[in-house]
Amino acid sequence: MPVTIDPHIAACSIEHIHDGRTDSRDDEVAVEEPLEIRVDGKALAVTMRSPGEDEELAVGFLAGEGLIAGPGDISEVGPDAELSANVVDVRTTAGLRRDPGERRFHLTSSCGICGKGALEDVHLAAPAPNQGGAPVGEALVLSAPDELRAGQHAFGRTGGLHATGIFEAGGRLLCLREDVGRHNAMDKAVGALLLEGRHPLSNAFACLSGRAGFELVQKAAMADMAGVVAVGAPTSLAVDLARERDMLLCGFVRDDSFNVYAGAGRLAPRSARPSTA
Amino acid sequence: MPVTIDPHIAACSIEHIHDGRTDSRDDEVAVEEPLEIRVDGKALAVTMRSPGEDEELAVGFLAGEGLIAGPGDISEVGPDAELSANVVDVRTTAGLRRDPGERRFHLTSSCGICGKGALEDVHLAAPAPNQGGAPVGEALVLSAPDELRAGQHAFGRTGGLHATGIFEAGGRLLCLREDVGRHNAMDKAVGALLLEGRHPLSNAFACLSGRAGFELVQKAAMADMAGVVAVGAPTSLAVDLARERDMLLCGFVRDDSFNVYAGAGRLAPRSARPSTA
Repeated sequence: MPVTIDPHIAACSIEHIHDGRTDSRDDEVAVEEPLEIRVDGKALAVTMRSPGEDEELAVGFLAGEGLIAGPGDISEVGPDAELSANVVDVRTTAGLRRDPGERRFHLTSSCGICGKGALEDVHLAAPAPNQGGAPVGEALVLSAPDELRAGQHAFGRTGGLHATGIFEAGGRLLCLREDVGRHNAMDKAVGALLLEGRHPLSNAFACLSGRAGFELVQKAAMADMAGVVAVGAPTSLAVDLARERDMLLCGFVRDDSFNVYAGAGRLAPRSARPSTA
Repeated sequence: MPVTIDPHIAACSIEHIHDGRTDSRDDEVAVEEPLEIRVDGKALAVTMRSPGEDEELAVGFLAGEGLIAGPGDISEVGPDAELSANVVDVRTTAGLRRDPGERRFHLTSSCGICGKGALEDVHLAAPAPNQGGAPVGEALVLSAPDELRAGQHAFGRTGGLHATGIFEAGGRLLCLREDVGRHNAMDKAVGALLLEGRHPLSNAFACLSGRAGFELVQKAAMADMAGVVAVGAPTSLAVDLARERDMLLCGFVRDDSFNVYAGAGRLAPRSARPSTA
């Protein structure tokens, strides 16, 4: 069995087959373990995640679901030591903002494919669309994925981790988190900032190492972010949501190009390009 | 808003930014919509998915959760026309095999990150480990991802779809499905074969376009497959499960190389290599 050598990485002996030859190697794989999220002692959700930053994951998940509105809703967060390292309990100041059983929430989790009904749920729970926020420069859209990748600790060793970075519109990387689940990486990044008292994130955007599905854009919307920049492709429903909320949504960011699917008005073009004359 | 032009593809006007220049383009994105899965008229789960093959998705999901054991458990599957195209109802012959509320199932879905407890659940619900099955040739492990990619209809146009192909150990591709959710692609492929009366799939393996997390290997185990071949990385828990069940688990399949994380005994080496003498 793989042996954990770092919260995110386990050693694993493998056979490597190359051009018909087999050799045994010591390799590394991304650690994956279940986490039970409890609220005021009551189990709410179970998620497969990269161990670590469990408090951030729990809090970011609750914020993304509209179950807490900000740092003031939380009195204490920590592992339930009597139970297991894979249980985290969030103590609220006055309970959750809505019944988690509403609108099929009992079937959802911090996850891209077991979603809420659809766009309607976001209307109900999300803050009013982000009206402000400084424009995001084109150069920043191009450089953010490189900064994300450079900050990924475990990806290069295991090839198995997704990342979310939250950047200020001005360019500063506020928080970067990695996880085997792309939605967990977003929840951890949002949760980490929320635990620092930073929420909502109206002047920030999220940079994703992969694709932008509906739920990732929804989580950004719930944190009132100005936009999402993805290395990969967006889905149709992600585009719909971003357009409806006038969020910047960029995809397929490459060395010197990207696509803008929504919120092009939030993009600051390069002020001057070198003349070709 | 993106306009659907194919069940999997929507047209979408975008701005393409290249080297500081902006031009408007007509692009295509992967369609994503919610589906409610009902059993005998009662809502069980909601998943964000690529529309189409909804009956397969529903049935494959139920099989992967151990809620049905095979084709004999199903009397009828179809959309609930009175409700919406995004609702599918599975009629059983004699109810589900277990209470879906057991063991936190109310919190899970067809999803890689909102998982069951862990390995224990698989012990409880999965068939006895696959003892037979023909060996899988190294050449087939190397060629399966190419065949998968060649069969992907929508990926090349949108960059947004995952795929699962189920291959016989002898090499024949039995079924290929694409979806915005990697777990849905697996559920659809398993479900399609189950609806043809092919279940369990003891002499077959699954080829995945991406990474192999715990839940994907679990779904393969629940269908009694002999193994999983992934283009990307596996996680630690996926390796644990595959080793425990003696399933073949290959990852990082490249042009002429791959890694074997579990079940190397199920691999048939090339019978002869050209002599270098």
